[in-house]
Amino acid sequence: MEKRILLTECSDDMGLIAKITNCCFNHHLNVIRQDQFASDEDHKFFMRSVLEGDFFYADRFLADVKSVLPEGAKVRLADNHRRRLCILVTKESHCLGEILMKTFSGALNADIVGVAGNYPDLSELARKFNVPFTLVSHEGITREEQEKRMMEVIDRLDCDYVILAKYMRILSPEFVNHYPLGKLINIHHSFLPAFIGAKPYQQAFDRGVKIIGATAHFVTNNLDEGPIIEQDVIKVNHRYDPKSLAKAGHDVEQMVLMRAISKVLDDKVFIHGNKTVVF
Amino acid sequence: MEKRILLTECSDDMGLIAKITNCCFNHHLNVIRQDQFASDEDHKFFMRSVLEGDFFYADRFLADVKSVLPEGAKVRLADNHRRRLCILVTKESHCLGEILMKTFSGALNADIVGVAGNYPDLSELARKFNVPFTLVSHEGITREEQEKRMMEVIDRLDCDYVILAKYMRILSPEFVNHYPLGKLINIHHSFLPAFIGAKPYQQAFDRGVKIIGATAHFVTNNLDEGPIIEQDVIKVNHRYDPKSLAKAGHDVEQMVLMRAISKVLDDKVFIHGNKTVVF
Amino acid sequence: MEKRILLTECSDDMGLIAKITNCCFNHHLNVIRQDQFASDEDHKFFMRSVLEGDFFYADRFLADVKSVLPEGAKVRLADNHRRRLCILVTKESHCLGEILMKTFSGALNADIVGVAGNYPDLSELARKFNVPFTLVSHEGITREEQEKRMMEVIDRLDCDYVILAKYMRILSPEFVNHYPLGKLINIHHSFLPAFIGAKPYQQAFDRGVKIIGATAHFVTNNLDEGPIIEQDVIKVNHRYDPKSLAKAGHDVEQMVLMRAISKVLDDKVFIHGNKTVVF
Amino acid sequence: MEKRILLTECSDDMGLIAKITNCCFNHHLNVIRQDQFASDEDHKFFMRSVLEGDFFYADRFLADVKSVLPEGAKVRLADNHRRRLCILVTKESHCLGEILMKTFSGALNADIVGVAGNYPDLSELARKFNVPFTLVSHEGITREEQEKRMMEVIDRLDCDYVILAKYMRILSPEFVNHYPLGKLINIHHSFLPAFIGAKPYQQAFDRGVKIIGATAHFVTNNLDEGPIIEQDVIKVNHRYDPKSLAKAGHDVEQMVLMRAISKVLDDKVFIHGNKTVVF
Repeated sequence: MEKRILLTECSDDMGLIAKITNCCFNHHLNVIRQDQFASDEDHKFFMRSVLEGDFFYADRFLADVKSVLPEGAKVRLADNHRRRLCILVTKESHCLGEILMKTFSGALNADIVGVAGNYPDLSELARKFNVPFTLVSHEGITREEQEKRMMEVIDRLDCDYVILAKYMRILSPEFVNHYPLGKLINIHHSFLPAFIGAKPYQQAFDRGVKIIGATAHFVTNNLDEGPIIEQDVIKVNHRYDPKSLAKAGHDVEQMVLMRAISKVLDDKVFIHGNKTVVF
Repeated sequence: MEKRILLTECSDDMGLIAKITNCCFNHHLNVIRQDQFASDEDHKFFMRSVLEGDFFYADRFLADVKSVLPEGAKVRLADNHRRRLCILVTKESHCLGEILMKTFSGALNADIVGVAGNYPDLSELARKFNVPFTLVSHEGITREEQEKRMMEVIDRLDCDYVILAKYMRILSPEFVNHYPLGKLINIHHSFLPAFIGAKPYQQAFDRGVKIIGATAHFVTNNLDEGPIIEQDVIKVNHRYDPKSLAKAGHDVEQMVLMRAISKVLDDKVFIHGNKTVVF
Repeated sequence: MEKRILLTECSDDMGLIAKITNCCFNHHLNVIRQDQFASDEDHKFFMRSVLEGDFFYADRFLADVKSVLPEGAKVRLADNHRRRLCILVTKESHCLGEILMKTFSGALNADIVGVAGNYPDLSELARKFNVPFTLVSHEGITREEQEKRMMEVIDRLDCDYVILAKYMRILSPEFVNHYPLGKLINIHHSFLPAFIGAKPYQQAFDRGVKIIGATAHFVTNNLDEGPIIEQDVIKVNHRYDPKSLAKAGHDVEQMVLMRAISKVLDDKVFIHGNKTVVF
Repeated sequence: MEKRILLTECSDDMGLIAKITNCCFNHHLNVIRQDQFASDEDHKFFMRSVLEGDFFYADRFLADVKSVLPEGAKVRLADNHRRRLCILVTKESHCLGEILMKTFSGALNADIVGVAGNYPDLSELARKFNVPFTLVSHEGITREEQEKRMMEVIDRLDCDYVILAKYMRILSPEFVNHYPLGKLINIHHSFLPAFIGAKPYQQAFDRGVKIIGATAHFVTNNLDEGPIIEQDVIKVNHRYDPKSLAKAGHDVEQMVLMRAISKVLDDKVFIHGNKTVVF
């Protein structure tokens, strides 16, 4: 018997859970775990059902499910194949390092198919783990040209997700729109919406906060404003300067990014307007 | 339209979710939220379904649900009535105070129908909130006799739950067995199973731990071993002595106990052997 | 032998710790705990020394300390007297309730000398604890007039600190400037600087954050921008609406406010520009 | 000007802080940060002073400090040299991986001079970072013999600290006593003293706890009973099985171990009986 995950997203309606689980039952698919959420403010329905059974007639099953749902429903049957990740970096190694380590240990059900950076600093680290590194420098060329080259590199890798693992470049709308919403995942080094923009640790120092944090989010055209997947914080005090804040923050950043990637790879994250539903 | 909560507990089986949600659908009851869990180790199935609709034929609905479930299933339809709480105390006021405050502010969907203590210290506090206080002293009488009197006090109050809000008496099997499992809720001042037994803050001090915590659990005949509902911790350091550990721990105790009570009152807690399923 | 706390604040300089501890030694005052901090960015020195000994000649001791410090130094010898708190409220009871409970239990070394609110809702609660409540309604009068009346109420109470325990009024510069910096302590229901201004829980809901929090800070003329004393957060998810976010947030608010008050009452908080040093 | 750290440990006495800071002052050494602690229960005094100045006459300075302290005082002047770490492992890579990454990025002021394991699994990972790996298998030989070989490997490396990064072997008293107290640092995968001994995640699952954690501690002859340096926890729920508990726990383990190592390398940790003082 195989396990697959049914992902349903549609307008909310009476009896949706019954209708969908009925379809599963009729196709002899056992629901071994089911999470659902309906939003009050805009009446959207989200459901993630882990199914066990025989998926020979997956297409017919999906068609059946779709037929009982409101118009415009999105239904998908995810399987367990290893996803392909492309990692974008600048100079800081901790997020890339953690992803490499988790892939190396087998804790992450994914392959890193390539790392690309606007500086060459992390080339050595990628190569230690036999991951190809491509330098896409921004020096001496326009932002437009650098992004064009970066997109070519990414597109050649045929990846499922692009992880911005402390890639310290502001992305143009052209770059962002080149990818479907949900494909680009960023780690921001503050508990957004606090300290949007550049130098969040300097901002945190200047404001004298007693907690700092990190936010993993999908990338949209509004800088640091995309749907938040995961956040966490740590406590700090007056003894921290911007440099030690950054050092302490690195642990949160790598942990928050990893948790977000894990949730996305487990198909536990739905995008709901500018928010997420994370089961 | 009314909202009620269907609570299902049975042996796990193929298609249970479909069968139950189908019953709901047939009775024109919309499932607006559903959480379920099936245990791997002993194949138990737990489900909590928030239903919306007309419950005129609740009995027939429950019978229908039961008819599709494996033998021995427990099914219950919880409503939203204010539960009756009896609080047992000794001398420390913080847990009782927090429950009184939350009831006063309307944050807790419950009434405190009585407070009973083996010391008179908290009588004044209870009376401030017009809650009757009964002194059941242990002085000059046997444990057996004191417990007998306490049970009489509790039983006269006709309560849904008995909250041991820092009631510093070890309960005999007779006392514990006098109540159904799930009716007695205790707060223990350590992150169990660390520091079982007396003086956990002294134990924590002696061991030099860097975190202390609290555990809310259902009471069973094994001291400090009942099903855990909620736990939390705070960080401490070498500067804390047993007294300041206790003081810092009070905040965690009252918070953990309140969260546990809230979960129980929302019918989100199932007992599963010596553990809990908390939705 | 008596215990008192020496609080020193001045420009940083070579040998300050030695000079001050020397003064203590010469006056036969034993330093049983000492915390100090010197800021890198503006070279300020802060020290808190818990002294044990005989304080008959406290004035001479302070003069001696002052004589070895740079010009403009502030030196103070705090004692252990119970501070007088005035609490301002609107309608929400949880913060006031927690302060009343902690005072009642003796956990807080302070007396609540009065509660004043712009609504009468919490009058009953204050009176339960024999604390006088004064209604200073804003209805039918100008902001200026309401603030004038409030200041009169506060000033009559002769208090050490004014705690804004969910007092939902924006304060004018006249009101703020009427008190020395450090006397007004506010609890804000977000992890500032996120969600400055009104309705932070609605803002948090709209932004889809995965953590919410609270911030206790000294009040300055910049709304929600004063020196932060204490912050904490809790995790939330997509299931929370603005109302349940607020409910969950209340626990953090009361805890963060209490911790801030405790630190201030223990003379552990220095104001350093728009930040704090909290030992 | 140089920075060095004066570490003082002795019986508590009147005026110790003044005496020591005076010595610093007389030697033109500025105290830029000072943390001290005196224990109530056994009257020990611990102080860490960050000094800035000229250390040509360090020996004379230390002698002067010692002359003003009670008999039996331990005084040490730590410098900033990169410490040498030897890492012991079995099969799990996450702790070793994190140490390697932090060393690689320069976040840790230390060199890993060797990795030794009782299985060959992590040899490849160590070699990626050009760290020599030595296999010291336990197969086919006595415990005594295996430990003897391991001690030879460690001793040859001439290291400052031996980090047991998930080295899943119980150490004999001979092994432990071969090293000074404070040299061996272990990470235990539970919030000790809960779940002492083998399989803590299975124990946590069986007990149904709602938090799991990790503990970094110095190794003594009492298994899992040595002085605790750092602890932290994460929340879990009924959905976790022993395997997913372990996976979630790995993040806490590597973080807690790294924080402990950092604190030790910064000379912020004193051993105080079976506890620690961590500044």
